[in-house]
Amino acid sequence: MVKAGIIGATGYAGGELVRLLLGHKDVEIKWYGSRSYIDKKYAEVYQNMFELVEDKCLDDNIEKLAEEVDVIFTATPQGYLASILTEEILDKVKIVDLSADYRIKDVSTYEEWYKIEHKSPQFIEEAVYGLCEVNREKVKKARLVANPGCYTTCSILTAYPLVKEGLIDPNSLIIDAKSGTSGAGRGAKVPNLYCEVNENMKAYGVTTHRHTPEIEEQLGYAAGKDITVTFTPHLAPMNRGILATEYASLIRKQDGSLPGAAEIRAAYEKYYKKEKFVRILDDGVCPETKWVEGSNYVDVNFKVDERTGRVVMMGALDNLVKGAAGQAVQNMNLLFGFDEAEGLNLVPMFP
Amino acid sequence: MVKAGIIGATGYAGGELVRLLLGHKDVEIKWYGSRSYIDKKYAEVYQNMFELVEDKCLDDNIEKLAEEVDVIFTATPQGYLASILTEEILDKVKIVDLSADYRIKDVSTYEEWYKIEHKSPQFIEEAVYGLCEVNREKVKKARLVANPGCYTTCSILTAYPLVKEGLIDPNSLIIDAKSGTSGAGRGAKVPNLYCEVNENMKAYGVTTHRHTPEIEEQLGYAAGKDITVTFTPHLAPMNRGILATEYASLIRKQDGSLPGAAEIRAAYEKYYKKEKFVRILDDGVCPETKWVEGSNYVDVNFKVDERTGRVVMMGALDNLVKGAAGQAVQNMNLLFGFDEAEGLNLVPMFP
Amino acid sequence: MVKAGIIGATGYAGGELVRLLLGHKDVEIKWYGSRSYIDKKYAEVYQNMFELVEDKCLDDNIEKLAEEVDVIFTATPQGYLASILTEEILDKVKIVDLSADYRIKDVSTYEEWYKIEHKSPQFIEEAVYGLCEVNREKVKKARLVANPGCYTTCSILTAYPLVKEGLIDPNSLIIDAKSGTSGAGRGAKVPNLYCEVNENMKAYGVTTHRHTPEIEEQLGYAAGKDITVTFTPHLAPMNRGILATEYASLIRKQDGSLPGAAEIRAAYEKYYKKEKFVRILDDGVCPETKWVEGSNYVDVNFKVDERTGRVVMMGALDNLVKGAAGQAVQNMNLLFGFDEAEGLNLVPMFP
Amino acid sequence: MVKAGIIGATGYAGGELVRLLLGHKDVEIKWYGSRSYIDKKYAEVYQNMFELVEDKCLDDNIEKLAEEVDVIFTATPQGYLASILTEEILDKVKIVDLSADYRIKDVSTYEEWYKIEHKSPQFIEEAVYGLCEVNREKVKKARLVANPGCYTTCSILTAYPLVKEGLIDPNSLIIDAKSGTSGAGRGAKVPNLYCEVNENMKAYGVTTHRHTPEIEEQLGYAAGKDITVTFTPHLAPMNRGILATEYASLIRKQDGSLPGAAEIRAAYEKYYKKEKFVRILDDGVCPETKWVEGSNYVDVNFKVDERTGRVVMMGALDNLVKGAAGQAVQNMNLLFGFDEAEGLNLVPMFP
Repeated sequence: MVKAGIIGATGYAGGELVRLLLGHKDVEIKWYGSRSYIDKKYAEVYQNMFELVEDKCLDDNIEKLAEEVDVIFTATPQGYLASILTEEILDKVKIVDLSADYRIKDVSTYEEWYKIEHKSPQFIEEAVYGLCEVNREKVKKARLVANPGCYTTCSILTAYPLVKEGLIDPNSLIIDAKSGTSGAGRGAKVPNLYCEVNENMKAYGVTTHRHTPEIEEQLGYAAGKDITVTFTPHLAPMNRGILATEYASLIRKQDGSLPGAAEIRAAYEKYYKKEKFVRILDDGVCPETKWVEGSNYVDVNFKVDERTGRVVMMGALDNLVKGAAGQAVQNMNLLFGFDEAEGLNLVPMFP
Repeated sequence: MVKAGIIGATGYAGGELVRLLLGHKDVEIKWYGSRSYIDKKYAEVYQNMFELVEDKCLDDNIEKLAEEVDVIFTATPQGYLASILTEEILDKVKIVDLSADYRIKDVSTYEEWYKIEHKSPQFIEEAVYGLCEVNREKVKKARLVANPGCYTTCSILTAYPLVKEGLIDPNSLIIDAKSGTSGAGRGAKVPNLYCEVNENMKAYGVTTHRHTPEIEEQLGYAAGKDITVTFTPHLAPMNRGILATEYASLIRKQDGSLPGAAEIRAAYEKYYKKEKFVRILDDGVCPETKWVEGSNYVDVNFKVDERTGRVVMMGALDNLVKGAAGQAVQNMNLLFGFDEAEGLNLVPMFP
Repeated sequence: MVKAGIIGATGYAGGELVRLLLGHKDVEIKWYGSRSYIDKKYAEVYQNMFELVEDKCLDDNIEKLAEEVDVIFTATPQGYLASILTEEILDKVKIVDLSADYRIKDVSTYEEWYKIEHKSPQFIEEAVYGLCEVNREKVKKARLVANPGCYTTCSILTAYPLVKEGLIDPNSLIIDAKSGTSGAGRGAKVPNLYCEVNENMKAYGVTTHRHTPEIEEQLGYAAGKDITVTFTPHLAPMNRGILATEYASLIRKQDGSLPGAAEIRAAYEKYYKKEKFVRILDDGVCPETKWVEGSNYVDVNFKVDERTGRVVMMGALDNLVKGAAGQAVQNMNLLFGFDEAEGLNLVPMFP
Repeated sequence: MVKAGIIGATGYAGGELVRLLLGHKDVEIKWYGSRSYIDKKYAEVYQNMFELVEDKCLDDNIEKLAEEVDVIFTATPQGYLASILTEEILDKVKIVDLSADYRIKDVSTYEEWYKIEHKSPQFIEEAVYGLCEVNREKVKKARLVANPGCYTTCSILTAYPLVKEGLIDPNSLIIDAKSGTSGAGRGAKVPNLYCEVNENMKAYGVTTHRHTPEIEEQLGYAAGKDITVTFTPHLAPMNRGILATEYASLIRKQDGSLPGAAEIRAAYEKYYKKEKFVRILDDGVCPETKWVEGSNYVDVNFKVDERTGRVVMMGALDNLVKGAAGQAVQNMNLLFGFDEAEGLNLVPMFP
């Protein structure tokens, strides 16, 4: 059994990690780290775990943790892991970091968008961006995995094949994303109160959301050049789910015609046909967040808009699963040579 | 592998059965019956099953089905199974009936509350009421299991120990139950539209709901006499979950004092301590439907109201799992000698 | 124009007061008190008021306020008004208190249930309990109105005629109430976060909720004796609305028969037929919170349960209107001799 | 008093018209037309109207209606009004049509997008597109007003000043709109059931939604040329509200620089500063649907994205008020010379 420790086990992503790892046949959780709830029974913080988890919450002692476990998941605020990570720790234990600390290769970009100084930039180069479908082989050999953000996983996977195949102009990409409220975390803030979110839709972080450079970097690799995109997140009155609706100009072929639906579908199939967790929906079926809730799936599809020469791409995932804890488990499976889907054979729950 | 067929596979309970059985290591679904969607791919009706279920929906031919499978689940309207069940079918196949057809032993009570004639009363006596925690041994030997209703499972299990132990006056029992909307089924009716249910609470079926005689019969067995209770269901703006708040007068002891919290807790523990799927919460913790969502758990607790001499009992379950499909699988596990929890080791999903 | 000041203008009840008073032809708001947002524009706290309210929030200086306005609304935490109220203030200004400070005549009962010392018990006797339909004439002559609680308004009005007419045993009364989340206020607390409330139902404050003695006192007046009731509040996943489902034993008539539906309806009509804001629904129609949302109505109805000798009473209101700010305006109208419905001719919004 | 008749009074838009007209001091409703509910009391169809409306629903006899009222509102399916309208009717009565029948000047465009034959194209030229802020003077003189669609009102008003002032390339316009479910109407369809919509986000009608040509036509007038846009509607789990997030490329000035926030704000103010029902929010404040719920306001704002040379525009309205019934009343006020805001002085309800 692989021994796992979680730092930040009482946030929503941490809680979802616990839910998933409890169903993983090769892992046992040895450390429920939570600075806010030290010595409190974990099942008192998350009552769904009553009689399932008997452990108490522990402090965040990463050195001690590195001695005791094989893998550490950090579901912590930005900057936390960067401020405590050392070579000694990385020598002893594999780390899947659910924060943004090692996602962005250019430290100045990180510092500009996150408004914090990066305390351990020496590990950035080594860290592998854990978008499994794109970086599978690199993840297998990593010590430190930068687990992608929820918006970014959805945004990138939805557009990736078309960018990679040169079917769209990546600089024309506009991503309009809608997220359930669990993405905002479990902090007690007025804007996240039930009565403020319920019966409401709003955009936020317009032109400034920190997932933007992450999307640009990864899709830039696919495009083979630096790109800029417009990314707008929205808060939706639901617990879980991200829906990304993405718009881009199709690149005309040499004969002046636009790529057709068949060509675009072929591009999606080239990259995703064998991917268990990416489902290319049937023609005409739009992804819905409810159809993937509780599971590790990303559902994608598209529609060509011949009138405007654009393609509308759509992707849906569960922000706490494929957008956070599920992908973290998928990365862990790759790190330890397990079946990539172990612990993730979750059928979406409907309704 | 046990072969299972589902009649009524495209209702919400049927869909949940599919979700659960896909995760059961000893069962394969051979028949997705749905008169409304014959020849349509099941995964087009429930898009969450895309790439998970490739079968098409079939007609409801129970004779043919009895030849091909080992167990039939009927998630069908009241009266359907009663109108087609024969001795020949029961000779060949085990049946778990999620409708009410064989739940009530007194056929005239059934006919009075359901307003339909019972077409095969000869099987009522044989049918076992599939409340696993109460009738486990009988279920194991049954051919025909009457799977309890969602409200009834919650209502009965919440009060059962106190009735059985004579701590409360069963005729004083008042059950105020709140249900998520999936309990109303997937039929296209105006009162179940999003805009009618959302931001709304209402009672319905006041004094006339058909789960009333089912509760009375089962708690009457526990009381050792005929009883009447008041049962009021409410529709709540959520997908899943039933919360039953139950009120009863405590029976004074010979010394004139009321039973205390310790005695009441002891009664719950007597019946449920070893029950995996019934969780007696810690003192002071109220059950919440969200804490059991997606799982087969029933969470129960209580509070003594010394001022009025009453006890307030509370129970919460997921109406589609322990209140329908989960309990059906639990019954199937008993029928076939599987581990009772196989396929049901579901961690509640939060949030 | 009557000049009004609000202390606690940035809570949900305070916000609703502003909404209602903006539509009142004889009132202008002169003081938006809010200790949390001093000097901040009110419309920045409640963006719905953008271009409608230009004022900034002010500190809570009740002496100064008493000089400047004709009526003060206090939508403040328990104990606040009691700690600052003086005879000098009451000489100058009328007060409608939305807190519980002067609702309960027995100061020891107040202190026991609210766990705070009452700092100005000398005003309790004078304060008029502002349940307009019951105490209309007294309110007209008052200086200090104790505006009833949201649960209590709903609970009392639903049962009042039957208690008053002696049709039910008041000590058998069980009140199961479901409230929207705005009743929990705008404080930033984890249990009120969107993801904690959404898709969830729970009871809370079981046997200990502070509205209990308020209900008992008022219904005790109607019964002509001290009574105890069981009251259980529940949190429902919706913004607004309270639904009270109330159970009581019918008192048999001298001939041994139970009161019938006609007699019960007659009792409701005796007290409410002329009441604009209490609507006795047609036979068989259950109150729904959505049907009164945004308005000052209370919808009531009942069903006799002959099998158990009980009656099930139901009442629905909007907790922020008739349950708080609307009733406060209704009381103000009585205090100043305005048409009782002025500013309250609000058609419920559906959906 | 102006006498009004409503055809289609029992749909959600019809119900909202009733709510608004009940609060209009110069109008009385004389005809509640509803083919589905003939002879049923209107207040039984919409229980919120209990004791407020005593009328029964009537059949849809437009000739008779034209004799009896001064203005007819048609909240009917596409094609209905076009199939019955005659010169005789228009001679007698003013009509505000909430359907799309007379919104689009090019009948072939209408027939192509709506897939129905237009039965009275002779009235299209005369009909005035009732977007009050743009066509106010024309509406005042009209007999037949084509009330704009919900998505279109929001989409057009959000972008109009920038198109009109030539600050953006109209052909680059991408509109990503999110709507509450009341926009889908009150028809009993499975996709509109509570459990299908709740906890779910999806796009629909991608590249084919019928509001597209309406937006293109109106913004084309502003641009002074034919344009095409990409419009994607989404269904959001809430009752009311539309949020439009709109993206367009800024047109560089002669000096090569992009228009700045000040110039863009100036354009909005040029057209909306004096408009009561369009609120340009403060810098940095994003429109939220909840802030306009129940009111006739449209809240707009924008953010310049210098990195990509685009502007992100945002608009929010209540689809049943400014998006339907409220704008219809606003048009009626213009038609009859009333204060344009009469009956529409509704403070948004929060929460």
